[in-house]
Amino acid sequence: MITRRDMLLASGGIVISGGMLQHSTSGAAEPKQLIYHSTAPDNAEPHLNDLVKSWITPTKHFYVRSHAPNPVIDPDNFQLKIEGMVNRPSSLSLKSLKRFKTHSTTATLTCAGNRRSEYNEEGKVGGVQWQAGAIGNATWQGVALADVLAEAEVMPDAKYVWFEGLDQIEKGGGIIPFGGSIPIAKAMIKNGAAAPLLADRMNDAILTADHGFPLRTVVPGYIGARSVKWLGRIVVSDRPSPNHYVATAYKIVKNTAPISWAESGPIYRYPINAAICTPAADAKVAAGQIELTGYVLPSGRPESKVKQVLVSTNQGKRWTEATMTGKDSEFCWQLWKAQVKVTSDTKRLMVRALDTSGGFMPYRVPWNAKGYLQNSWFQLPVQVS
Amino acid sequence: MITRRDMLLASGGIVISGGMLQHSTSGAAEPKQLIYHSTAPDNAEPHLNDLVKSWITPTKHFYVRSHAPNPVIDPDNFQLKIEGMVNRPSSLSLKSLKRFKTHSTTATLTCAGNRRSEYNEEGKVGGVQWQAGAIGNATWQGVALADVLAEAEVMPDAKYVWFEGLDQIEKGGGIIPFGGSIPIAKAMIKNGAAAPLLADRMNDAILTADHGFPLRTVVPGYIGARSVKWLGRIVVSDRPSPNHYVATAYKIVKNTAPISWAESGPIYRYPINAAICTPAADAKVAAGQIELTGYVLPSGRPESKVKQVLVSTNQGKRWTEATMTGKDSEFCWQLWKAQVKVTSDTKRLMVRALDTSGGFMPYRVPWNAKGYLQNSWFQLPVQVS
Repeated sequence: MITRRDMLLASGGIVISGGMLQHSTSGAAEPKQLIYHSTAPDNAEPHLNDLVKSWITPTKHFYVRSHAPNPVIDPDNFQLKIEGMVNRPSSLSLKSLKRFKTHSTTATLTCAGNRRSEYNEEGKVGGVQWQAGAIGNATWQGVALADVLAEAEVMPDAKYVWFEGLDQIEKGGGIIPFGGSIPIAKAMIKNGAAAPLLADRMNDAILTADHGFPLRTVVPGYIGARSVKWLGRIVVSDRPSPNHYVATAYKIVKNTAPISWAESGPIYRYPINAAICTPAADAKVAAGQIELTGYVLPSGRPESKVKQVLVSTNQGKRWTEATMTGKDSEFCWQLWKAQVKVTSDTKRLMVRALDTSGGFMPYRVPWNAKGYLQNSWFQLPVQVS
Repeated sequence: MITRRDMLLASGGIVISGGMLQHSTSGAAEPKQLIYHSTAPDNAEPHLNDLVKSWITPTKHFYVRSHAPNPVIDPDNFQLKIEGMVNRPSSLSLKSLKRFKTHSTTATLTCAGNRRSEYNEEGKVGGVQWQAGAIGNATWQGVALADVLAEAEVMPDAKYVWFEGLDQIEKGGGIIPFGGSIPIAKAMIKNGAAAPLLADRMNDAILTADHGFPLRTVVPGYIGARSVKWLGRIVVSDRPSPNHYVATAYKIVKNTAPISWAESGPIYRYPINAAICTPAADAKVAAGQIELTGYVLPSGRPESKVKQVLVSTNQGKRWTEATMTGKDSEFCWQLWKAQVKVTSDTKRLMVRALDTSGGFMPYRVPWNAKGYLQNSWFQLPVQVS
């Protein structure tokens, strides 16, 4: 699935980019069109008007969330280790992964911290100050995690599968890899949209360094943090990973006392969310009829579909139903548009949504210390002239 | 801490009651004043007007939540086993527990299913059809779990403490005990209101059979299910208990597919909640000034206090602040009262509340398949004449 030429381009890309450039499918360096919150580690999100240009998010507009500088990985010597509660531990080269059936899955990834900055009104939260762009929809190609695990022969008492990246994160005076962990029931799904992948391609091109070259997990329905980039090791276990990003970070807590972490479980599925992408925040718009566009992502539960997207120009007194555009596919966002009338009284445009699995965006989501899962009604200030 | 006479009374109580009678402090049988949803197992809650008569809930008005008929336990032969990741496993009689320091803690217990019946409007939920009475505030006496664990010498990698009851629950064709599990960080709290107890007394009397005679855990701040009755075994472990009531039940899920259980963590702390206790539902009240009374329980987080209790007679258009009555004590409810004006337009009385740790009752809590943690705005229909 990876050609020799792809590999050279991608590994070269890691070395020369380190920041603002990436390789397009054609191999030509194409500027990424993202707003950078930090570099090395790179954390960047697209402009919202770019995000709604197409149902499939081009890689140049796909948010980047990294915890360390992109690791430099030699694909020829790369080995994925499968360890823990398996009868047949193994180490697989990229080439040996090709013997498994290839899957192609379109799935939306979204950072658990998407829209984090909106929490600051109630109380300052640390971390990358994401606006509403830490989300994107891509096509991922690779092999099913379940097929690889089947060959390794998972022991009956296994309960979780851990993922470990080859990145090196400075943390508490030491160096740790980024880690994820998913329930065995999810890991064992062999087919269909819900099956987790070990992916080497994104949007019909080899993974870029930013997105995990040469191999990453893609776990449809789960927060982006479980789709571990630069995957180097899989551990099958009877408990969730003790890695910092499972045991401590990516949890909903009111404060950062150890007891609070202990009492909160890891986040897996993402909740329903939506945002207005055009017009832009604080845009000057003329009174009268205008078009709003945006995205909506139903809750990451199997068979959860968008039920309704509602917009308001008068603080929720009246709601107008938006129209879906683009494809309707499991674990994927939808794009939407709506025609609304704005007047000189309109201070904010609002969107909220409901899905078929009972998910809805609440008026206000309870504040949490790490600023995760912000899915309150999305409110966009505008200036009507 | 338990007298011989207490023991005889209590163990006798188990045999003869089996249902509607219990022993008062004086030893005289006093009818319980509860609404029974089932017997053997007993599941019962008080009338709401009884619940607000005093800050300490008399045992006769304290809700009963059991999963099996009360076990008959001979206190003379009772042994509490301490096992798992401890250097010194042991088995302790009631008498040998007396060598640990006695603690007295007032704490509110509330069933995770309190107010479950309100979910049925949106979609039917199984389980005990609790109204708003599955809550009570009592004084508990016993020893600190942390002191017992200290003597057993917990190993450094321990992460959870499991509790196992001596009850026998028919489940999936077999018999299992009720089980609970709490994080080690909580279990290790030695002093103060947050310290979990191994309690043998409730409201200055020996535990009744209904409430776990001869020994139960009391875990302040956590849902009632973690306060395991008829405690027979403590296991220290590096993972949460695999017992059904930790691994499967008492989780927030949208449906009961195995993947949903796997993806959801155990509930520990209870969220903020409040209810109107008088007048009663559908009461006929005269237009004009009336008094509302009720309870409010702040979120089960350390140092979380009630910030505001607000009532409305006109569907939330205007809110009146209620006045707290009774004591303000960590991990305890408060009682409140409010004077409001009702008119012929008043169809419902409503209460919502906020606490100092950021907890608030949402307008509507998302429906979940097991009907847990219902803490939407409490709405009480009334008939104004």
